[in-house]
Amino acid sequence: MKVVERIKEIRNELNHVRKSGTTIGFVPTMGYLHEGHVSLIHAAKKKKHFVVVSIFVNPLQFGPNEDLDRYPRDFERDEKIAKEAGADLVFYPSVHEMYPTNMPMTIHVTNGADVLCGKSRPGHFDGVATVVMKLLQIVQPTEAFFGQKDAQQLAIIMNMVQAFNVPISITGCPTIREEDGLAKSSRNVYLEENEREEAPFLYETLRKGAEWIQLGETSRSAILAELKKSLEKGSGTLDYVDVLTYPSLEPVENLQGKVILAVAYAYKKARLIDNYILELKEEA
Amino acid sequence: MKVVERIKEIRNELNHVRKSGTTIGFVPTMGYLHEGHVSLIHAAKKKKHFVVVSIFVNPLQFGPNEDLDRYPRDFERDEKIAKEAGADLVFYPSVHEMYPTNMPMTIHVTNGADVLCGKSRPGHFDGVATVVMKLLQIVQPTEAFFGQKDAQQLAIIMNMVQAFNVPISITGCPTIREEDGLAKSSRNVYLEENEREEAPFLYETLRKGAEWIQLGETSRSAILAELKKSLEKGSGTLDYVDVLTYPSLEPVENLQGKVILAVAYAYKKARLIDNYILELKEEA
Repeated sequence: MKVVERIKEIRNELNHVRKSGTTIGFVPTMGYLHEGHVSLIHAAKKKKHFVVVSIFVNPLQFGPNEDLDRYPRDFERDEKIAKEAGADLVFYPSVHEMYPTNMPMTIHVTNGADVLCGKSRPGHFDGVATVVMKLLQIVQPTEAFFGQKDAQQLAIIMNMVQAFNVPISITGCPTIREEDGLAKSSRNVYLEENEREEAPFLYETLRKGAEWIQLGETSRSAILAELKKSLEKGSGTLDYVDVLTYPSLEPVENLQGKVILAVAYAYKKARLIDNYILELKEEA
Repeated sequence: MKVVERIKEIRNELNHVRKSGTTIGFVPTMGYLHEGHVSLIHAAKKKKHFVVVSIFVNPLQFGPNEDLDRYPRDFERDEKIAKEAGADLVFYPSVHEMYPTNMPMTIHVTNGADVLCGKSRPGHFDGVATVVMKLLQIVQPTEAFFGQKDAQQLAIIMNMVQAFNVPISITGCPTIREEDGLAKSSRNVYLEENEREEAPFLYETLRKGAEWIQLGETSRSAILAELKKSLEKGSGTLDYVDVLTYPSLEPVENLQGKVILAVAYAYKKARLIDNYILELKEEA
């Protein structure tokens, strides 16, 4: 597995790969790799791609009050994990390599950025879209892989690729879960014992909500009321719960097509997010 | 010469071209082709590219008070001109093909959009950058050609390609001029006789300004004062004159590197623009 830090160099490397007729699969990350990332690398590997993993903590997606400097970094560990997972190349650019000057323009997300996690992070998804557009232009993969756990990010990337006609296919990979259903997250270790025991009810609640929808309850407000009732029984604090179209992320009252149920829930030392995406069959 | 209206179809056509080992040269236009466009097609042809010309009047770059519907269109004439100039393929998409839904995000230009022509057209260059990004992703040319007459547009496209690492080279082609120096424009026919006689003084003034700079006057304010003095002698109305870095379009007092002198000047029925770009040699 090669590690490449310069844009020129990765372009060269990948031109050789493309000329040999091999397709390129891309897993963009901010490093500090965990099982979720590994599952993305495996998904790319399974499709016989030459697998590129990027590791770049993107300053543009951090707000002025969000601590960019404290974001966890451990490149040696990441390199080992990527290699063991089967990555063929790690792209590890410096901030200066990615942003040699201030960006004279950015992608500004007008739909789907002000709901869910975006509500409390203005500008965050502009930063995400901008860096992913850059990375897609640098790597020019056939297929890029994102976790469904970050469902809003995945939605916005899907929308971006479609809106700008980027000739790439975007694949969302399922959330990796503990046996009791809790979505895996590096933050789970911060849960107290009773919180850890309770936490699977988040996914269980979304799953039930999805079931109600599939059984015929297509009123967003009715589903939301039920979800809130269940979630308020927990010992933490409900940050948000919402039901939106997917990936357009619109609050449509009469649910149809693809729909996401999403929750953010704060325990004492860990804020957990989870979601459930389902597709309503059209009426005959 | 083929005419293609669908994105899927042009992708197919160009994949064949690429596989045959031919490079693609791209000339994006809003149609109503004139000698300037023809010179861009010739420049692309000269470099042995397979030449794609797009004809698309982009609604996104028109403000609410700008009359999109009255923008001149004549596809049959355009087709004939493109063919005679040596274009290999014309891409002529509908608005629905380019914007099947409202754009959920756009490119937002933060540097260089609020000077020169952008001052009076807020959002205009966001619309330009957004549609050109889409077209570049659809056509994926090796090289794209723009006229230097629209110097601010050219600058912003250059900045965009660099900022987003789009793997394409952008070539600016010189402004086509009448024998007396007046930049060719479809608007010149609206000039009254005495205006037409006077109008070459715009370019002449910029050229003199460039000469002063090259002779050692590197104070922006000094140059601007001289330019204004000359331009106010004309019978029309000075809309703006400015001296900026190029292509970053910044008002730096101590001129150095690449510099643009640009003017917009309103006669009774025609608003003319022109510019002069020069590169200052670094001191030894």
